[in-house]
Amino acid sequence: MKLITLILFLTGIAVAQRNFQQTPPYSPQLTSELKQLQEAALKSDYAWEQLAHLTNNIGPRPAGSAQANHAAQYVASELRKLGLDVRLEKVMVPHWVRGEETGALVEFPGMAPGTTQKIVLTALGGSVATPPQGVTAEVVVVNTFDELTALGNKVAGKIILFNEKFDKQLAAMGRGGPAYGQAVIYRGIGAIAAARQGAIASLIRSVGGADYRLPHTGAMRYQQDVPKIPAAALSAEDADLLAYLTGQGPVRMHLVLTPQQLPEVESYNVVADLKGSEHPEQVVIVSGHLDSWDLGTGAIDDGAGVVVAMQAAHLVKQLGLHPRRTIRVIAWMNEEFGVSGGTAYAALHKDEAANHFAAIESDLGAGHPAGISMAAPRENLASLRPAAAILQSSGAGIVQASEDTETDISPLLALGVPCFGPIQDDRFYFNYHHTAADTLDKVIPRELQENAAVMAVLAYVLANVPTDLQRPTPRPAPTF
Amino acid sequence: MKLITLILFLTGIAVAQRNFQQTPPYSPQLTSELKQLQEAALKSDYAWEQLAHLTNNIGPRPAGSAQANHAAQYVASELRKLGLDVRLEKVMVPHWVRGEETGALVEFPGMAPGTTQKIVLTALGGSVATPPQGVTAEVVVVNTFDELTALGNKVAGKIILFNEKFDKQLAAMGRGGPAYGQAVIYRGIGAIAAARQGAIASLIRSVGGADYRLPHTGAMRYQQDVPKIPAAALSAEDADLLAYLTGQGPVRMHLVLTPQQLPEVESYNVVADLKGSEHPEQVVIVSGHLDSWDLGTGAIDDGAGVVVAMQAAHLVKQLGLHPRRTIRVIAWMNEEFGVSGGTAYAALHKDEAANHFAAIESDLGAGHPAGISMAAPRENLASLRPAAAILQSSGAGIVQASEDTETDISPLLALGVPCFGPIQDDRFYFNYHHTAADTLDKVIPRELQENAAVMAVLAYVLANVPTDLQRPTPRPAPTF
Repeated sequence: MKLITLILFLTGIAVAQRNFQQTPPYSPQLTSELKQLQEAALKSDYAWEQLAHLTNNIGPRPAGSAQANHAAQYVASELRKLGLDVRLEKVMVPHWVRGEETGALVEFPGMAPGTTQKIVLTALGGSVATPPQGVTAEVVVVNTFDELTALGNKVAGKIILFNEKFDKQLAAMGRGGPAYGQAVIYRGIGAIAAARQGAIASLIRSVGGADYRLPHTGAMRYQQDVPKIPAAALSAEDADLLAYLTGQGPVRMHLVLTPQQLPEVESYNVVADLKGSEHPEQVVIVSGHLDSWDLGTGAIDDGAGVVVAMQAAHLVKQLGLHPRRTIRVIAWMNEEFGVSGGTAYAALHKDEAANHFAAIESDLGAGHPAGISMAAPRENLASLRPAAAILQSSGAGIVQASEDTETDISPLLALGVPCFGPIQDDRFYFNYHHTAADTLDKVIPRELQENAAVMAVLAYVLANVPTDLQRPTPRPAPTF
Repeated sequence: MKLITLILFLTGIAVAQRNFQQTPPYSPQLTSELKQLQEAALKSDYAWEQLAHLTNNIGPRPAGSAQANHAAQYVASELRKLGLDVRLEKVMVPHWVRGEETGALVEFPGMAPGTTQKIVLTALGGSVATPPQGVTAEVVVVNTFDELTALGNKVAGKIILFNEKFDKQLAAMGRGGPAYGQAVIYRGIGAIAAARQGAIASLIRSVGGADYRLPHTGAMRYQQDVPKIPAAALSAEDADLLAYLTGQGPVRMHLVLTPQQLPEVESYNVVADLKGSEHPEQVVIVSGHLDSWDLGTGAIDDGAGVVVAMQAAHLVKQLGLHPRRTIRVIAWMNEEFGVSGGTAYAALHKDEAANHFAAIESDLGAGHPAGISMAAPRENLASLRPAAAILQSSGAGIVQASEDTETDISPLLALGVPCFGPIQDDRFYFNYHHTAADTLDKVIPRELQENAAVMAVLAYVLANVPTDLQRPTPRPAPTF
């Protein structure tokens, strides 16, 4: 360690300690209750059992599916069992259903005569279909939008593959979010850019870190004045194959995608109140999203978020605690396909925004939590520090301010509601999310308990801090 | 380190050094040539480019396929380009072709009314088909043959799942082979055991370490007096799901498998000689197998083995070296589905067994090689030690005796031919082999070069050692 680094480090400790001492201490009772919640969360199997039921007994829960609505009824019923005041708030959701999906190379350099090569792919959520018999066209591989633009109308009638690589090194460094953000743009609007130049289908390299021939789905968009062309994600290996072969000569691919966009379906946010003893009108939301993609069973995205929110209420009840403010458990419907639930809730409860004291969401899996992230003025951090000090014993002692928050509660942030979430180990999250491999085994029971501890302690401390929080400046509502 | 351990360790070093000094040194010329081969192998892209062609341009090479025979012609042509004396030795191979394969749970505890759950599976090689419309039956999960036996005729009319887990911890310790051996028995004969008790289909948990919803195929067997029932491998996640659900109540599954067993096909071992200068009649085989499973493109199993064998000949030619004995490159046909090529070669060349000085095969991927394994009397180790000392600079300095050798050359071992192979890092091999994810990117170029160095040095030293090797005692021919 260089001397200057050491000095900065020691200064940092001093600053941290000074900050710590400036923190208004919680009452001995609140401190004791938070410790009880933490301890109980680290011992309880409740969250795990709920997650097993959601993923194994109910299964994939894509928006609009019978499973998603069944899951909403199930969660509502479980929260009623805890004695919460539960209602289903209606949300209209899109209903897109995956169909047949196959890819095969029918011409490529060096091919054994009369053979083809299978291409592993999956339709992106919202994609239109090819004709039932599929399309066959030459594949053009580009790495960036600029490369596509430079090709002009040379790509007319062809299939575009955007080969932007998910940055695995960044993800391995614990920066999966930025790695995802860099690559996901091609999933979102690649089909628009490709269609503008006359392409007949748009493929992307999967946005994720897996190297197990595993395609990652996710939502994509169209634009009104641009033709809608079919869109799919290839496994990383298949994208590599196309990059290699197109570098040697013409490659033609046969592509079949037959998804259907069915009429909108009535679905629900599950909203369950554990009433506050002093300020029942003031609400602290603790939440995750109940819908999942259709390929896996939605364990890390985001069954885990739902069950740790349920666990917060379960433990408060189990320990016979009485929060000053209302703790509101929400299982959001349809984060994945346009954030219907989060948007509908913010619209419905807009006039009660001032009474939304805080909102918490967990939507980055169930990796070991290192602490708490807050989207609100930094001055509030002092109110969280004693809670973080308690959570430090289970490894979650960091508190940090952030500009952003999780998707479903971002419309509330725009209304000026302080938003919170766990800081999680996401090094492996993007290997699995949006794939068939998002299944129960990807959650480590001990880590789920650690996350439940963060959610329970965070929800309870926000429901009990004696002072008001400083609120973020309202901003324009996000568009999805 | 305990004192006794330290003493044993130091004694070991002393013994190793004494052994080393007893080793007959190679001539300065041979030593120099071996170093040249090693150095050239560590720099050359030849093996990588050949592997890219086999996997990307030709693709999957299952026995009996057009791709497998095209690959044989391609390898023969490449070896002719090197100036080798090449012939295709005819081998009849089975021709099993994968069809449709789907699994769906149609009844299970807690299911949302009117829904199903997809089960990810793949037919085992050689499986018979279900009726085209599939079969539907209750699933019974067992962990062992004993558990199955105990159920008697209660499993009649049902689908059996053998849920034996691949031991990932053993594999992580570098003992993937034993981990594979423990679990693969259910793949081989599970369908026989299940059918004996009246089951209508036999499923296994995939024999491998991946947790990416990735089923592993592989060969399975039937027995003449037992009904042939369809057999498939589930991903580990799907096996976990069935174990969980059947623990709660009845689970019924719809299974469709439509593979076809077509008539035998004429195929080939590629046999290419680089003639020895002093003893052209004495042969040192250097080999890998050219066929692969159909799901992936056979990069680690076993394109890598073929190309490092080709590289051995390529480098000897490139450096203008003249081995005393003949170096014979062989690309075996159909290791996976009954070892047709290895068996046919041993039968055809049985009378020349005494002139087979040694045989080398690489068939465990292309992980970093730690040294050389030998199936032959230990006394031969001394002849290899100077070669190992050279290879130590690229991390491959171990030499060890073993009872067994790779599959294709095991019929030669039975005839008394000393057999050799690289000792490889197989910690990740069983995550990928026999799956769709056995693709080029699983091979690390540097590690392929390291393997090529071992194969080239080993082939060349065996083709040049001045003394005869002691030969293994002939044993009964293996059955596959």
